Amino acid sequence: MDDVIRPWEKVGSKEVGNFRIFNVRSDIRIHPRSGRQHDLYVIESVDWVNACAVTPDGKLVMVEQFRHGSETVEMEVPGGMMDREDTDPVETAVRELREETGYGGGEARLLGYMHGNSAIMNNRCHTVLVTGATLQHARQLDAGEDIRVHLVALEEVPRLVASGRVRHSIALAALHHFDLWRRGFITTGAA
Amino acid sequence: MDDVIRPWEKVGSKEVGNFRIFNVRSDIRIHPRSGRQHDLYVIESVDWVNACAVTPDGKLVMVEQFRHGSETVEMEVPGGMMDREDTDPVETAVRELREETGYGGGEARLLGYMHGNSAIMNNRCHTVLVTGATLQHARQLDAGEDIRVHLVALEEVPRLVASGRVRHSIALAALHHFDLWRRGFITTGAA
Repeated sequence: MDDVIRPWEKVGSKEVGNFRIFNVRSDIRIHPRSGRQHDLYVIESVDWVNACAVTPDGKLVMVEQFRHGSETVEMEVPGGMMDREDTDPVETAVRELREETGYGGGEARLLGYMHGNSAIMNNRCHTVLVTGATLQHARQLDAGEDIRVHLVALEEVPRLVASGRVRHSIALAALHHFDLWRRGFITTGAA
Repeated sequence: MDDVIRPWEKVGSKEVGNFRIFNVRSDIRIHPRSGRQHDLYVIESVDWVNACAVTPDGKLVMVEQFRHGSETVEMEVPGGMMDREDTDPVETAVRELREETGYGGGEARLLGYMHGNSAIMNNRCHTVLVTGATLQHARQLDAGEDIRVHLVALEEVPRLVASGRVRHSIALAALHHFDLWRRGFITTGAA
């Protein structure tokens, strides 16, 4: 039997919910082996970015904030949504880093991307590395933000993650990219 | 100024959408510094599990499947939803591993958990480690599943992730837990 995994043909799609920061869509698709129809809900969102910013003295810039999904205070890396007019995830990450933490400068480049959630979301989340980041600006928090900045020594990051202090799936995944870069598995144009 | 991050008081909440595998809720909360009201959408879901299963000869059991959110074929670790009657994530992970791959046996325990997405979802995703897993059963795929099993040598996993082949945020995050266990940062009752 053919064991190559094939895409499922889409034979119908309609919007079924609009919730400002995301929409919900209902798709009808055909199972490639059984030929049967399945209907599936998909959450549509703009892309997101995360910034893994390192200072010249070897600290990772992290942020702590209350999160409304989990209803808990979480330790994460800075990040945010790409606005409709944003076309470059690196620029967006540098902007979010500056607004949330005041850090900037140095050199910024892409480490990789992930899907917001391949099963139920249609967006991507880009992991951006910023090296040589220093405190350069006043922070510009949105009215809906309340964020505390933490500097974490690079050698402490694996222990911090292992302790369970980082629980946002997207931050945990972005820090996987970052860890693989630190260990030489991911290389970028300028290292 | 007080820089401790405080939870935001919830002063209202109502369900605004029901999409079978998730609901959407609208909450009203008070910003702890400004005192202003903000309304926020939250996606409610059951908890999820991921199984990082290792064979006696040092292979990680991975699955490849078409994903309806990203509309792409993805390489992930086995996993799934905890049904309403499921109370133990380890049991659920062992069941999903068996159904999707036929692998079982050995020893299973929790490595950690993450939030589905701390910003917009209310559920958790548990990372379960299974050691000594062997092919023991016939697979039992749901009508809506089409899954291919891959065995990946443990020393190849960081390269596979670094190559961008793993893009599901939840799988990327679960493999971060797994990598930290492999390197001794996460320890479990029986190692």
